[in-house]
Amino acid sequence: MASSFGDLFRVSTFGESHCRGVGAVVDGCPAGMALTEADIQPQLSRRRPGQSSITTHRDEEDRVEIFSGTEGGKTLGTPIMLLVQNTDQRPGDYGEMRSIPRPSHADYTYQIKYGIHAASGGGRASARESIGRVAAGAIAEKWLRLRYGVEIVAWVSAVGHIAMPQPDLSCMSRDRVDAHITRCPHPESASRMQQLIEELRAAKDSTGGIVNCLCRQVPAGLGEPVFDKLEARLAQAMLSIPATKGFDIGSGFAGISLRGSRHNDPFVSKGQRLGTLTNNSGGVQGGISNGEDIVFRVAFKPVATIGLPQETVDFDGSPATLSAKGRHDPCVVPRAVPIVEAMAALVLMDMALQQRAHEQ
Amino acid sequence: MASSFGDLFRVSTFGESHCRGVGAVVDGCPAGMALTEADIQPQLSRRRPGQSSITTHRDEEDRVEIFSGTEGGKTLGTPIMLLVQNTDQRPGDYGEMRSIPRPSHADYTYQIKYGIHAASGGGRASARESIGRVAAGAIAEKWLRLRYGVEIVAWVSAVGHIAMPQPDLSCMSRDRVDAHITRCPHPESASRMQQLIEELRAAKDSTGGIVNCLCRQVPAGLGEPVFDKLEARLAQAMLSIPATKGFDIGSGFAGISLRGSRHNDPFVSKGQRLGTLTNNSGGVQGGISNGEDIVFRVAFKPVATIGLPQETVDFDGSPATLSAKGRHDPCVVPRAVPIVEAMAALVLMDMALQQRAHEQ
Amino acid sequence: MASSFGDLFRVSTFGESHCRGVGAVVDGCPAGMALTEADIQPQLSRRRPGQSSITTHRDEEDRVEIFSGTEGGKTLGTPIMLLVQNTDQRPGDYGEMRSIPRPSHADYTYQIKYGIHAASGGGRASARESIGRVAAGAIAEKWLRLRYGVEIVAWVSAVGHIAMPQPDLSCMSRDRVDAHITRCPHPESASRMQQLIEELRAAKDSTGGIVNCLCRQVPAGLGEPVFDKLEARLAQAMLSIPATKGFDIGSGFAGISLRGSRHNDPFVSKGQRLGTLTNNSGGVQGGISNGEDIVFRVAFKPVATIGLPQETVDFDGSPATLSAKGRHDPCVVPRAVPIVEAMAALVLMDMALQQRAHEQ
Amino acid sequence: MASSFGDLFRVSTFGESHCRGVGAVVDGCPAGMALTEADIQPQLSRRRPGQSSITTHRDEEDRVEIFSGTEGGKTLGTPIMLLVQNTDQRPGDYGEMRSIPRPSHADYTYQIKYGIHAASGGGRASARESIGRVAAGAIAEKWLRLRYGVEIVAWVSAVGHIAMPQPDLSCMSRDRVDAHITRCPHPESASRMQQLIEELRAAKDSTGGIVNCLCRQVPAGLGEPVFDKLEARLAQAMLSIPATKGFDIGSGFAGISLRGSRHNDPFVSKGQRLGTLTNNSGGVQGGISNGEDIVFRVAFKPVATIGLPQETVDFDGSPATLSAKGRHDPCVVPRAVPIVEAMAALVLMDMALQQRAHEQ
Repeated sequence: MASSFGDLFRVSTFGESHCRGVGAVVDGCPAGMALTEADIQPQLSRRRPGQSSITTHRDEEDRVEIFSGTEGGKTLGTPIMLLVQNTDQRPGDYGEMRSIPRPSHADYTYQIKYGIHAASGGGRASARESIGRVAAGAIAEKWLRLRYGVEIVAWVSAVGHIAMPQPDLSCMSRDRVDAHITRCPHPESASRMQQLIEELRAAKDSTGGIVNCLCRQVPAGLGEPVFDKLEARLAQAMLSIPATKGFDIGSGFAGISLRGSRHNDPFVSKGQRLGTLTNNSGGVQGGISNGEDIVFRVAFKPVATIGLPQETVDFDGSPATLSAKGRHDPCVVPRAVPIVEAMAALVLMDMALQQRAHEQ
Repeated sequence: MASSFGDLFRVSTFGESHCRGVGAVVDGCPAGMALTEADIQPQLSRRRPGQSSITTHRDEEDRVEIFSGTEGGKTLGTPIMLLVQNTDQRPGDYGEMRSIPRPSHADYTYQIKYGIHAASGGGRASARESIGRVAAGAIAEKWLRLRYGVEIVAWVSAVGHIAMPQPDLSCMSRDRVDAHITRCPHPESASRMQQLIEELRAAKDSTGGIVNCLCRQVPAGLGEPVFDKLEARLAQAMLSIPATKGFDIGSGFAGISLRGSRHNDPFVSKGQRLGTLTNNSGGVQGGISNGEDIVFRVAFKPVATIGLPQETVDFDGSPATLSAKGRHDPCVVPRAVPIVEAMAALVLMDMALQQRAHEQ
Repeated sequence: MASSFGDLFRVSTFGESHCRGVGAVVDGCPAGMALTEADIQPQLSRRRPGQSSITTHRDEEDRVEIFSGTEGGKTLGTPIMLLVQNTDQRPGDYGEMRSIPRPSHADYTYQIKYGIHAASGGGRASARESIGRVAAGAIAEKWLRLRYGVEIVAWVSAVGHIAMPQPDLSCMSRDRVDAHITRCPHPESASRMQQLIEELRAAKDSTGGIVNCLCRQVPAGLGEPVFDKLEARLAQAMLSIPATKGFDIGSGFAGISLRGSRHNDPFVSKGQRLGTLTNNSGGVQGGISNGEDIVFRVAFKPVATIGLPQETVDFDGSPATLSAKGRHDPCVVPRAVPIVEAMAALVLMDMALQQRAHEQ
Repeated sequence: MASSFGDLFRVSTFGESHCRGVGAVVDGCPAGMALTEADIQPQLSRRRPGQSSITTHRDEEDRVEIFSGTEGGKTLGTPIMLLVQNTDQRPGDYGEMRSIPRPSHADYTYQIKYGIHAASGGGRASARESIGRVAAGAIAEKWLRLRYGVEIVAWVSAVGHIAMPQPDLSCMSRDRVDAHITRCPHPESASRMQQLIEELRAAKDSTGGIVNCLCRQVPAGLGEPVFDKLEARLAQAMLSIPATKGFDIGSGFAGISLRGSRHNDPFVSKGQRLGTLTNNSGGVQGGISNGEDIVFRVAFKPVATIGLPQETVDFDGSPATLSAKGRHDPCVVPRAVPIVEAMAALVLMDMALQQRAHEQ
């Protein structure tokens, strides 16, 4: 189960790679917000493959339709069903993979778990599942922006061994991120990343990378002790994205070797509220947002589906060689950017509604 | 809210640092399992402060009592209430902290969220909250061990800048971990860690560290697509532990720079099942356990409460200097070991019951 | 919120009366069950208006499509999205009702709750919402039948003041129920009910009724103490159907005046299991099924939308007379029969999976 | 499972009849509300057996202690653990019932469900489980009263065949209800009820009854379409109380035979809001409160445990005669009054927080 996320803004996604459609039902969006497909489509288009020379060319428009929950362009407070019809249903493409589970992919574990697996292998592990998340995330993001001015921007900070230098967060924006097809906002690093990706495509190999995310203007007080700490929900959200292997927030893994006297963020007065001088906490203290920027990183492993032949075994345990057919992304992180943003929005939205429910 | 964790093995913890008691209600434990306090106390005792020269001396026995849910030493299938009475209730100790929020602690965010905060500051952010988790985790662990032979071992792999070398996982055990008070199973590293901790104690400063965790004999098929992927729930569970800043699984952050051809885990035949030759996946593929060892890491930040004076502001925004009174752990990671194990057990238990519910 | 029902077999319905479509996402159906639209359509057709001279004529086919979760006619264990496209979208029909809330309908309360209401008035209170339930219920019913042989039959036992005599439950079947358009299996009562309904249609008035439900072959042990007692979940499920006002199980309201010595169901040996001689318990004891027939009743109020002029006030509080336009059912209970069956199936399915999760 | 109730005000009860203690953890109570044991004890005392000549004499004080979640007499917003220690632990009393399941009691179904049952038989089906509900309900009630002026009053309207006449709701109060030990506010009926109960006690037999409940000043807008309609949650809540067999709201079962033109509640202007002239809806329309009084009834079956010998079979299916030892209530409805009130408060509280979360 667990195709649902969130308690008060609950998103239930559906759809496999090659069924009739994919999408989501969003329950818990407050009524009266202006909402049409035009609010959702841009993020879906950013997620779509085939946007550039470095991503796969599966030719689908990913056109979203709102089936319920709005009338006259406004939300009714009722479930919003978002559907993207699959136009490219070709289960036949996956012939060889039916009998040979792809290494480091979901084919084997789905078969073990369910006793059956979709022709396309992983089924729900398909990247197309994220369409529902991104569509739902766009709704959450709009509400958060209108209500609190929240801004969420993610970008690619590393591809393979190439990492960009620490950026100035104050001028980070989606425009800057989208200025390069790698979605790395540091032009020189971006060029090197692109070159690496093209080399790997030629070599029929792949690599991983890191997506960073920044959430501005998040009100203080979001996050629920103790199991729904804001960083805990963000961690769950990010590790639920296919191909992710790690998450850290604020100083993260690098912060462990600092001394407390250096790592602690001293409080300072910032107008009506307290702020912090530094932000090693990443905007969260004790699991609750403190009003500072929320900053975190997500690690993506190298893409599992590669064209290079791999020595493995088939479902029966007999030796086999697998070479993935067709074109595959050598690196998914540029396309993962809007997914990370969407999941961040879903977490913040749910926590914002939780706080409204209980605040004095 | 969210003082509950799990859907089918649900743990609801309660208690602040200085109230009458802390503990948990465990709902969903299958009936008929032998269970007494003796199954729970050992892990609680491993968690307890005051065990060695390098941890704080708060003199409480942390004696757990089972108040309900068992009869004649067997579980009834009904809620198990676990209580540890607080014997050391001294809210008065925290006088200065009432008016000055501790930097990088939960005092400020609790005040903002609730409009009130416990005398002890963070309230539920207190380390004593983890007593309920550890007690509940011991129950989950026992069931998993009896049913599947699951073994969970965590250890300290880094303290500050000192990291132990990659260990041989096959001989990792709690005995080896507990052989040194740092809970680092590499003696030479352990000695250096201990020395660092003692230096920091003398300097009234603190540092962070890393806890690694290994889960053996986890059956394949656990983990629920898409939002309750096994790594997603583990990430939530670990980031819900106080002072954590990061989580990664398998190859984790280090794996991003590998090529797919090198990172993929080829399948091999292992008797009746398929296994993998390498384990960059960390035992999870597509969010579902594959039968290999589950291995992950958790990053802990430097302890926020330090004796060194810190320049900060009080709740009103006026400049203030804070120096924490009393003795404080310079490094929590040795004591975090059983908490990490407990949270891993809670995740695996919940996922195991989920799988029982839905399997064909 | 709460457009979702169930914890382990979770149905999330969506759709208003006049949006693009209505339906449901079903998460938690075990994998490997044969399932096509043909398994679902019959119950939807039984629910559909326009089946006979005594129900409304809204000319929609209610043709269900499975959008996800199956492949090759088998369930994958993943979310099943069921969609019925609305072909009759005429929000304009409801002009007068926009300004005058219909007495005893949901128009007013939706406006108060959401600050907005759908052109069709109640929005989610529309009878069309039940399409998603019935479709999902058909899936649950199939699984329960295949796994345990469960049979669920509901029927009309009263319309207005006309009540049928106590039937012989052993020969109750859907065929017998459907033999008459009132879905009352007692021919003489059925004729009188039909006559009453036709009189009320002519008089532009309406009435209520009672639906009884019988669940056979339900395994003992289903139902979760204490808040998810089987009767508690059934009560919630039934009272969630539009226009319901009451629920009772077994001896129900009539049983309160009996003496315990007369009301208690003595145990008897029934082959391998214990059974009871009488069934005042209605198949449930202590909230848990005991293996006997589950029998309960659901009360439906008179239909609120009537053609007769009603003296009321508009949203501004000014006196107004409302006469509903168009044709309206004078009595919904015949069409409620498959909805009651569906909700019973959803409860039993969820409880069956709960029991699988936790049984020893 | 399901020893928890509510999503945003979540009550998790624990405890069997003869374990160390019973109680509840309440998660989700807003911070800053004055709360001490004195707010909770009165309802617990009303629930307690041994209050009068017509109820059982189990000599326990049922003294509640708040173990967590408050400080200085105010709620902290964190889980409130409420404990009543059992002083009367005598599992030995139930010797004969170990081998002979009591007819219409939970002994048999618990054994089937769990493969084990408590010495006291039903375990969680014990009336003592309701202590946790009543304690939690008192907290909810206080918050609802302070925030909205909500008043909740329940009373006994029928015992056996004796039903009181329709009362004037406007002057119903707990004082009037408690004026007679039967908790029936109609003195003449109350006397007859008492006489019946005493006759049944002498005859070692029992009977059932009806509890009515009235909730005043409930704000309009509470209740969540479609599965958490207010009446649906109330129905679940009431049918989760031991020994209940039915629930109806507003006109209920009696309303089914009315015509719509007679049953509909016309709107009228009531100051700033709309009200209704009649209240057949029972304060709920479309599943959402409309601001009128909420009125419902709960049917309780005759007490199952009786002193009269009953012919039944033991767990092995062999004929046996069972005569319950000790003193048993011939009628539980007077003591059920505060339980019904508590469950109503829990539902309203949870729905109130839901509405706060989502309102515009």
